Amino acid sequence: MVDINRQWRLKRHPEPGEVVSADLFAFESGAIPKPDDGQVLVRTLALGTSPAQRSYISLGRSMHEKVKLGDVMRGRGVGVVIESRHPDYKPGDIMSASLGWQDYSVQTPSVHAQRILNIGKVAQPVKPYSLHLGVLGSAGATGYFGLLDVGEAKPGDTVVVSAAAGGIGSIVGQIARNIGCRVIGIAGSDEKCRWVVDALKFDAAINYKTENVDARLGELCPDGMNVYFDNVGGDILDAALDHLALHARIVVCGFISVEQAVGPAPGPKNYGNLVRRRARMEGFFVLDYVERFDESEAKMRAWYDAGKLDPCEDIDHGLELMPETLASLFKGTNRGIKLNRVAPDP
Amino acid sequence: MVDINRQWRLKRHPEPGEVVSADLFAFESGAIPKPDDGQVLVRTLALGTSPAQRSYISLGRSMHEKVKLGDVMRGRGVGVVIESRHPDYKPGDIMSASLGWQDYSVQTPSVHAQRILNIGKVAQPVKPYSLHLGVLGSAGATGYFGLLDVGEAKPGDTVVVSAAAGGIGSIVGQIARNIGCRVIGIAGSDEKCRWVVDALKFDAAINYKTENVDARLGELCPDGMNVYFDNVGGDILDAALDHLALHARIVVCGFISVEQAVGPAPGPKNYGNLVRRRARMEGFFVLDYVERFDESEAKMRAWYDAGKLDPCEDIDHGLELMPETLASLFKGTNRGIKLNRVAPDP
Repeated sequence: MVDINRQWRLKRHPEPGEVVSADLFAFESGAIPKPDDGQVLVRTLALGTSPAQRSYISLGRSMHEKVKLGDVMRGRGVGVVIESRHPDYKPGDIMSASLGWQDYSVQTPSVHAQRILNIGKVAQPVKPYSLHLGVLGSAGATGYFGLLDVGEAKPGDTVVVSAAAGGIGSIVGQIARNIGCRVIGIAGSDEKCRWVVDALKFDAAINYKTENVDARLGELCPDGMNVYFDNVGGDILDAALDHLALHARIVVCGFISVEQAVGPAPGPKNYGNLVRRRARMEGFFVLDYVERFDESEAKMRAWYDAGKLDPCEDIDHGLELMPETLASLFKGTNRGIKLNRVAPDP
Repeated sequence: MVDINRQWRLKRHPEPGEVVSADLFAFESGAIPKPDDGQVLVRTLALGTSPAQRSYISLGRSMHEKVKLGDVMRGRGVGVVIESRHPDYKPGDIMSASLGWQDYSVQTPSVHAQRILNIGKVAQPVKPYSLHLGVLGSAGATGYFGLLDVGEAKPGDTVVVSAAAGGIGSIVGQIARNIGCRVIGIAGSDEKCRWVVDALKFDAAINYKTENVDARLGELCPDGMNVYFDNVGGDILDAALDHLALHARIVVCGFISVEQAVGPAPGPKNYGNLVRRRARMEGFFVLDYVERFDESEAKMRAWYDAGKLDPCEDIDHGLELMPETLASLFKGTNRGIKLNRVAPDP
């Protein structure tokens, strides 16, 4: 274990269209911080990734608080408590929090943060602890509430998910399959398509880079799709809008196609189909569901324990790789939930 | 009363971008048809209008059945039964049906048509019978279910409605006001804006032709709008998307901006705000609510009887004017529900 605190600090904002890289950050070392009363010192074990992290550091408008130049890059992680000056925490406790891209951080647990941001002690830690960043954490909750609450997926529904081989897509498709939906994934390579069909048991997959998505959706969804879980926006959303079943639900989870776009991205030109198919398109934000995370975690845990949920972890090892870990989301090189295991589980 | 049957028949399809006019139709005369067993002969009293009627006659894709060249133009109306060979109908009964642009038509009442299309006898006719095309008919139901069911408007909500001086907009705004919402209208002239504020008691109105809609929405909705009832699409929808309250609902009722557009219309480029505001955009079609029309009609009737609902009828007189009656929707010259009173109420 290192006895210095390595940190990635924001050096400059990305240009529009620029892919995230180590060039945006400075990798520095500092002293391990000391907790005050009511605080804990946490050793980072694993860091997660999210396309939204690019908007933390870009100059564009976003719903997220920005990371300032010189600050440690923000990011969620799981860690282990090393030292505690908080009555409810003791060394060895596993914590999920906004740890940042660093080896150590001081955290100030609060009921508020636990209730609003799902930041705090992991009640029933499961190894590898990175699962609490993935299927047993907010990624799992995103798939669960997005698909079932916002998307109202029901057994027998045809569910289409874009970025199917990505972190959220791979979870959404497996939940849909587990509740008895027909699941079609859209992904960017034959290899990803094979993976979601062979390993994750999707019913079919479309390679949007080599196939005509519109024509293939027509073949695979002759009666239209009941739920479209959208992780990408852009042309694929437009194609999906042309194949909606009556009263279809479009879950707008993200739009990686616009996160690094230059200038305003075009809107979905086929949105008129919302009227023709009496359908809805709804955005959501998983932290609105924090009070129900116990429910999603229990359900995901049961599927995981029963061997019905591949956690789809795609792991880099080493804090020094963290910019590349995040960049893989934008390059499309990840398969499943992209993580960085910064230190071994204790 | 005429003893011939005047009819407007489709002569040619409108070009993309072409405004509806008499030039598209032939005004012909024929014999008054005879009902067979199970049918009734109906004298047209009033004909309604809808932007969707342009898509009946255009060559573009639409959810509506097309009118073929040479056929009588389709359109809903109210009429009086002149002769009946149906056991449940007698002369003098008032009927709401797809009468077409003609003086007389033969109708075949059916339980199916009544239940699915709201075509059949008006159970409790109110004079002027044209009300059953407006506030007491499907226009009223569109406002009622669109605002309350799809839009989930609640007392205290801020509701913004576009095409506020149009048929649906004027009804939606009044319903919103009656249930205790704050109502802001968007319309295309100072005169229309004055009308919705002075006569219909909207709280405010924005002239989109002379004012900056984005800036004015910011002033009038500092906390965002809870419901946006969209009758137009286009730039105004984009501006509205930038002023959503958390969990806002956008009711997509129509997009007159695209009905006669040349080529595919651009989509709402600000739809990303659906995620930022955890909002939804939902299309609807009023005939999905036919089984609940009794509920909307009773509620609208009670408001109307109490003097709380201006029926906002904008009436032309004479079948010969019908193409211009419809055209006024696209020219924006109507104020409220545009109708043509073809014959006096008996």
